[in-house]
Amino acid sequence: MGFKIVGVIGSSKADPDLLALAEEVGAEIAKRGAAVVCGGLTGVMEAVCKGARKEGGLTIGIIPSDNRNDANPYVQIPIVTGMGMGRNVMLVKTADVVIAVGGEFGTLSEIAHALNLGKTVIGLRTWKLEKAHNRAIPDLIEVDNPKKAVDLALSVISAKR
Amino acid sequence: MGFKIVGVIGSSKADPDLLALAEEVGAEIAKRGAAVVCGGLTGVMEAVCKGARKEGGLTIGIIPSDNRNDANPYVQIPIVTGMGMGRNVMLVKTADVVIAVGGEFGTLSEIAHALNLGKTVIGLRTWKLEKAHNRAIPDLIEVDNPKKAVDLALSVISAKR
Amino acid sequence: MGFKIVGVIGSSKADPDLLALAEEVGAEIAKRGAAVVCGGLTGVMEAVCKGARKEGGLTIGIIPSDNRNDANPYVQIPIVTGMGMGRNVMLVKTADVVIAVGGEFGTLSEIAHALNLGKTVIGLRTWKLEKAHNRAIPDLIEVDNPKKAVDLALSVISAKR
Amino acid sequence: MGFKIVGVIGSSKADPDLLALAEEVGAEIAKRGAAVVCGGLTGVMEAVCKGARKEGGLTIGIIPSDNRNDANPYVQIPIVTGMGMGRNVMLVKTADVVIAVGGEFGTLSEIAHALNLGKTVIGLRTWKLEKAHNRAIPDLIEVDNPKKAVDLALSVISAKR
Repeated sequence: MGFKIVGVIGSSKADPDLLALAEEVGAEIAKRGAAVVCGGLTGVMEAVCKGARKEGGLTIGIIPSDNRNDANPYVQIPIVTGMGMGRNVMLVKTADVVIAVGGEFGTLSEIAHALNLGKTVIGLRTWKLEKAHNRAIPDLIEVDNPKKAVDLALSVISAKR
Repeated sequence: MGFKIVGVIGSSKADPDLLALAEEVGAEIAKRGAAVVCGGLTGVMEAVCKGARKEGGLTIGIIPSDNRNDANPYVQIPIVTGMGMGRNVMLVKTADVVIAVGGEFGTLSEIAHALNLGKTVIGLRTWKLEKAHNRAIPDLIEVDNPKKAVDLALSVISAKR
Repeated sequence: MGFKIVGVIGSSKADPDLLALAEEVGAEIAKRGAAVVCGGLTGVMEAVCKGARKEGGLTIGIIPSDNRNDANPYVQIPIVTGMGMGRNVMLVKTADVVIAVGGEFGTLSEIAHALNLGKTVIGLRTWKLEKAHNRAIPDLIEVDNPKKAVDLALSVISAKR
Repeated sequence: MGFKIVGVIGSSKADPDLLALAEEVGAEIAKRGAAVVCGGLTGVMEAVCKGARKEGGLTIGIIPSDNRNDANPYVQIPIVTGMGMGRNVMLVKTADVVIAVGGEFGTLSEIAHALNLGKTVIGLRTWKLEKAHNRAIPDLIEVDNPKKAVDLALSVISAKR
């Protein structure tokens, strides 16, 4: 069946608190034997890879540019797409489940794509969504710490496989 | 310089009120000599093309599948991507400005991609966005009728070109 | 049913003979009321659009970059993909039939994608293909002038629709 | 710097001789500590992953569909693109160097994309290319056995990094 793969999304610029959360998310994923897939760049993406590598985990970065050297130094497997923001779609398709840490518009697009695919999205200080036209509230589960986020992510994977 | 191109986004299933709004948006765009680009399928996408064609406008549909026949009958130029939701990114890149009519998660992804690119997004009964972590409110301009939406869209294009 | 769409492929740098062929291909397509889809850049892509516009034809350029201004001045509808060479796939999917005028490796990739999709490819001074392992010769039809190429292209579209 | 990554391309249907070659290619790559990236499906793609796994190597499959279960059982890391043939571009961008084993039109597209990017392509019983218009012969290096192919591939990676 291959590795369990947890997608972690978040922006390339983030404050130290968010980076610390992301690093802890990465470490928790690695401790549970799952791989991390992320956008492969800086900020939250680098922090989650750093955390995963500290615990010996496997890190995959889906790179928007044509240049593998755009990957942060903690990415072991850079997937070089050359498809710009089109790579956001592939990131969430590759992930069994998605954890959002903070995030700007790119992260919002990934949350939307993931929910569109019916994937569970777990949020740590990320976007709140509200539809204007009287439909159900989107299925984005906000939690308050990295350990809870990863516990929930792995539970979702176990239930689905 | 080619055609002025207004992107119109919205979901494949929509209630009659939203479809009527979309059709009026399409007609207003055509009256002003601009082309419509949309996702090319049913619902809001079909209604906007129908409205544009009634006024002799040009309609472009960016199709997610490999099959040009998935385009609605009012699409004159089906762009066949075979890239699934990856086509959402191309739709907003191709548009000079974006009008969102209602919309589900796919539309939300397009709003996010457009705002990420710095494009103006004009909303008719669409998503409201709120960030959880104390940043500025996203630049999505809600208006209350199709004519205002298209007037604003064309003003944005004129200012940019 | 929308426009009949003829894909024309060829490289961004080409000698004057190839450019003249490409311009004539564009003119012939426009005279028959079909639209041209191409990669939207310079060289063969620009020549075919120029020829089509001289005859009042419709020109679509599938742009690899994020910048609509990379389109040559004869492109009326730039589709902005931001997907680099990934746009080659979409160009051939969008075309009903493909005409190759000269061409380098990018053109070869488009010929291969088109043949893989079962689309007819008509060649003017383009690649010759030979498999090393005893299979049938690929279905690339070499002709010796633009008029023959476009006549054949339109015949293929009529037979398929 | 992450893993050294060798791309192996070839078709989903292949005769037993080609499958045996592909399996040996995979084994040789793994013995040298490099990872395999391939299209992730059956035929040559499955054989190369099988060979790599026998020697404890790491296997990455760039899947065209939306379904990770389309990956062959020897793929450890399925990258789920949902971009159809558009994934061919990403496969060659992700690889440091490419080995082609036999192959049909899909493989030809990948050879063309790789050569277009300036990447070395090493062939085992694959396509022969000839341009019609008096340019240099493409840089596709045909070798006669898997060990030579992988030795050369690793030499290219060492020279480039």
